[in-house]
Amino acid sequence: MNTRISFELVKTCRQSGARLGILHTPHGDIETPCYMPVGTQATVKAMTPRDLEDVRAGIILSNTYHLYLRPGHDLVREAGGLHTFMHWNHPILTDSGGFQVFSLAKMNDITEDGVVFRSHIDGSSHFFTPEKVMEIEEALGADIAMCFDECAPFPSDHAYAYGAMQRTHRWAERCREAHTREDQALFGIVQGSTFRDLRVESARTLAAMDFPGYGIGGLSVGEPKETMYEMLEEIMPFMPENKPRYLMGVGSPDCLLEGVLRGVDMFDCVLQTRTARNGLAMTRHGKRMLRNAVYERDFTPIEEGCDCYACRNGFTKAYVRHLVKEKEILAAQLITMHNLRFSIRLMEDVRQAIREDRFGDFAREMLEQGIYA
Amino acid sequence: MNTRISFELVKTCRQSGARLGILHTPHGDIETPCYMPVGTQATVKAMTPRDLEDVRAGIILSNTYHLYLRPGHDLVREAGGLHTFMHWNHPILTDSGGFQVFSLAKMNDITEDGVVFRSHIDGSSHFFTPEKVMEIEEALGADIAMCFDECAPFPSDHAYAYGAMQRTHRWAERCREAHTREDQALFGIVQGSTFRDLRVESARTLAAMDFPGYGIGGLSVGEPKETMYEMLEEIMPFMPENKPRYLMGVGSPDCLLEGVLRGVDMFDCVLQTRTARNGLAMTRHGKRMLRNAVYERDFTPIEEGCDCYACRNGFTKAYVRHLVKEKEILAAQLITMHNLRFSIRLMEDVRQAIREDRFGDFAREMLEQGIYA
Repeated sequence: MNTRISFELVKTCRQSGARLGILHTPHGDIETPCYMPVGTQATVKAMTPRDLEDVRAGIILSNTYHLYLRPGHDLVREAGGLHTFMHWNHPILTDSGGFQVFSLAKMNDITEDGVVFRSHIDGSSHFFTPEKVMEIEEALGADIAMCFDECAPFPSDHAYAYGAMQRTHRWAERCREAHTREDQALFGIVQGSTFRDLRVESARTLAAMDFPGYGIGGLSVGEPKETMYEMLEEIMPFMPENKPRYLMGVGSPDCLLEGVLRGVDMFDCVLQTRTARNGLAMTRHGKRMLRNAVYERDFTPIEEGCDCYACRNGFTKAYVRHLVKEKEILAAQLITMHNLRFSIRLMEDVRQAIREDRFGDFAREMLEQGIYA
Repeated sequence: MNTRISFELVKTCRQSGARLGILHTPHGDIETPCYMPVGTQATVKAMTPRDLEDVRAGIILSNTYHLYLRPGHDLVREAGGLHTFMHWNHPILTDSGGFQVFSLAKMNDITEDGVVFRSHIDGSSHFFTPEKVMEIEEALGADIAMCFDECAPFPSDHAYAYGAMQRTHRWAERCREAHTREDQALFGIVQGSTFRDLRVESARTLAAMDFPGYGIGGLSVGEPKETMYEMLEEIMPFMPENKPRYLMGVGSPDCLLEGVLRGVDMFDCVLQTRTARNGLAMTRHGKRMLRNAVYERDFTPIEEGCDCYACRNGFTKAYVRHLVKEKEILAAQLITMHNLRFSIRLMEDVRQAIREDRFGDFAREMLEQGIYA
């Protein structure tokens, strides 16, 4: 299984313990640590694939729950899979819908077999089992698929979190049994809410199942960031060295740095694209609400030193502010390009710092100078 | 005056009388006949300048009325002019706001001196005179500026249309007096509503003023297309041979062909970009409402033979339909690129047909096969 996907741990930063790696996939190699832009509905909002290549996106994420509902995984399979459908010839990861059926669907009814839920769009009833989700993810055909898991809300009590974690483990076994595509890696997902003992148990149990990679789920769901960092520290000794670790749904710049410091290899987050559509630009010195009057006659780029399409071509804050105020689509396009490139460039610099054994210094410097958090 | 802008009539089609020309501007040469995409608020909606270059847009139009209101022409001047502000290093034409103050503004009060109008955005009161409009257009700094004119509504009676036309001529003189930029051509505008005698008088009067080019205004404002074609036929004998003729606000594919047949050199229209945002794709065999269920599993490009970014890369109707239904910004991006490229490619083929003295055949073939009208 997963013969065409593998992870290579290149080195560990002597200063910080952060990891540098390469994820080999049928659609190319991805250097880690990496940030994955999110293309929920088979499109990273406001970006053409050409724009995504321009920001040097390596791997993107798409959402199984959304694509199952619309346009339907059968249609995507008929189109030749997600890569062909959306014209993205680089790696893709699909989540399992586990998060969405618990957070986005109108109701859900969990049994050992699976989850009955109602679509957030039209209220129609659907049933996800681990086997069904594997069928969907195989139809989508991403390079990396995620196991169907139960994501406990925050806060959960210990008993509830324990039950959800155990079910996640049983479902992980069923996913592994049901999964057949050799050109797709199936990652397990560590759960356990905010309980140290459960997180450790989940990490150990999943490690024993020998998945080619691991998601860390159920974090960034409302708990304090410090709690998330503690959970990461707790589980890392039990995560296999030679497997990639993907912190799901996390990607604010400070969390990228803190996550890498604790041994995370992969991240995804909608923050970059969602805030862009509200006129917020991320910079290494904090956020810029480009709508603000202070930028009315600011004829400098969004961020000095940035090499995104907008910044390198001299689109000014004054111009982008005008576009934001006029609700022009180009505002979303330019700021999305900036925020994605900002995050991807940050990860390029992160990798360079690891390569040079100075990632501890780099992270501290970025955090001290007030990088967008 | 206008030393850096000139028009070169290259040849006239022996079959149809259609004209092939080159417009020389400080920002490059434009082959005519040409279609100009519209960038109302200093952006062609949903297009980066890179996207516009990809569809091979040569010259674009921007709207004086809108830019005057927001962000303000002073700000654009401070930014270094419209080319720098919007990062478009190719030719630009600005209209005069004449059409908008009569059609879009909340009220207007016309005197010999100018027009008092209320902003359609916030109701604030403004006063446009020919001199004021010249100041604004010079601040914007397009390659081609248009005279401030009075656009009579359709229908107008002869007396009203006559008065509006005469005022337009007096204002044209004042514009010419006020206009100073040598790197900007100022075009006069022929008016006269749907009255043959007035159209002829307007063409003759403006021709005598020796502008470097001429707009044909006050058409496509509700009159039948046949009436518009008649007006074009009426005025052309009186339009100077060696000056470009720009049919303002007209650009549906059938009108492009019919206009060129009658000696028009330049067109602009928002149809291409506006309909794109509603999911309508233009093709040489008619319109495609990409939202329609018939395209659900249509895995062919928007239009066979099209070389736009979407079509040449194999984005399918099924995919674009999914994007349209999900209200994804990428739908607007891809269809806008297609519709613009469709129109610009049509004009490339128009020019080739003129070059080969077969434009009459080409136009008839296109119209008979049901090109989008």
